[in-house]
Amino acid sequence: MKSSSRIIVALDPPEEVDDVVSWALNIVDNTIDYVVGYEVGLPLLIRANGVKELSVLLDRISDLELRIADLKLADISDMMVLAIKPLIEIGFNAFTAHAFIGYSGALKELGSFLQKNDSKLICIISMSQPGGVDFFDKYLDRLTNIAIKAGAWGLVAPATRPWVIRKLRKLIDYMGWRHIKILAPGVGYQGGRPGQALENGADYEIIGRYITRSSNPQNVVKEIARIHEEVIRRVEG
Amino acid sequence: MKSSSRIIVALDPPEEVDDVVSWALNIVDNTIDYVVGYEVGLPLLIRANGVKELSVLLDRISDLELRIADLKLADISDMMVLAIKPLIEIGFNAFTAHAFIGYSGALKELGSFLQKNDSKLICIISMSQPGGVDFFDKYLDRLTNIAIKAGAWGLVAPATRPWVIRKLRKLIDYMGWRHIKILAPGVGYQGGRPGQALENGADYEIIGRYITRSSNPQNVVKEIARIHEEVIRRVEG
Repeated sequence: MKSSSRIIVALDPPEEVDDVVSWALNIVDNTIDYVVGYEVGLPLLIRANGVKELSVLLDRISDLELRIADLKLADISDMMVLAIKPLIEIGFNAFTAHAFIGYSGALKELGSFLQKNDSKLICIISMSQPGGVDFFDKYLDRLTNIAIKAGAWGLVAPATRPWVIRKLRKLIDYMGWRHIKILAPGVGYQGGRPGQALENGADYEIIGRYITRSSNPQNVVKEIARIHEEVIRRVEG
Repeated sequence: MKSSSRIIVALDPPEEVDDVVSWALNIVDNTIDYVVGYEVGLPLLIRANGVKELSVLLDRISDLELRIADLKLADISDMMVLAIKPLIEIGFNAFTAHAFIGYSGALKELGSFLQKNDSKLICIISMSQPGGVDFFDKYLDRLTNIAIKAGAWGLVAPATRPWVIRKLRKLIDYMGWRHIKILAPGVGYQGGRPGQALENGADYEIIGRYITRSSNPQNVVKEIARIHEEVIRRVEG
């Protein structure tokens, strides 16, 4: 593990893989020395044989700073809390949720539940798909305010639209929320150039298929780490 | 099964239950004669031992019209499709997704994938928690338009805010989309009175804890069915 790394690997298994947890463990073994954390989404969660099998994966990455369940939660608070309890038990320590579900009866209760359980709330403020402009980008300020009010540790904004990241960075700096992290998915496969999100104000880049579907995940992650170091040297002076 | 029923039961297991699939099967056996379908959300999905165990439940309800995976999907299209494929394979035939994620790269591709797989897209247009007013209710028209464009079979609006259901019913009737169904969660436990959503223009009421946590689920579901019949007689003539 490198705590200075800005790389989070999204473990989304391809369709043709049968044993998704073994697939994920293999990626982890090849990349763990170069990343700050991993992210598990519904494709892996649904195809694993329950939380028991997933706990093997969580044990393997238990030293890492970020063990994210990328559920993109968007439900009433009771249901979100009910869904994540078994995931906290096996070692996830951060959860993504949409800011658009609002505060009361939703993010408020989720945020305080996560705080009580030493876990991080990561709020989705914008998304990488073209349709992300239909709503998200129009209400960046308001979504950010709801997320911060709920105690978010980090905010998600897409590497595919660097101007959104710049705007978000400006907004949170201006509001005095400099401690809030920005996480950027959409690097590589979806079109974001590695390092570009960091240049534009993100703290972490979330990278999935670009690493996990390459013939040599370790080489790719090492190359991205090298690019990131260059960018950080340049940006931070 | 009663195809004229307007009741969908949400199968969200309480925390203290260990074997969540047996718990769900027991509810099904006690209610199946009075409902049009069931809904499975993340709390059950995460705590079941994989899709294999869930398939037993889907087999039991295979004759029902609605077998909904209430994932409240809100991701990019690739990830949503990857997540639901194994669920279609075991017999789910309807999926909830947020209209908020927008059309291109999100609902558009999800809608056409579901259509190809004889499955229904159910779009969340508003939510039952108090914070639902922060965003959803302000953009009802726009969210509805995105959902319809993506080929939604049904729309979700909360039983806890009957005026939202009325507004949505007016909107879809006015636009000539009378075939579109309205599904209303939030009945009972969250405060919606059984039958009230139907009175206000919904086609189905989604009821969870009010039925599943009662000491006699069958009695409760029979009583709701009776109330529904009265309401329908009154409303439809």
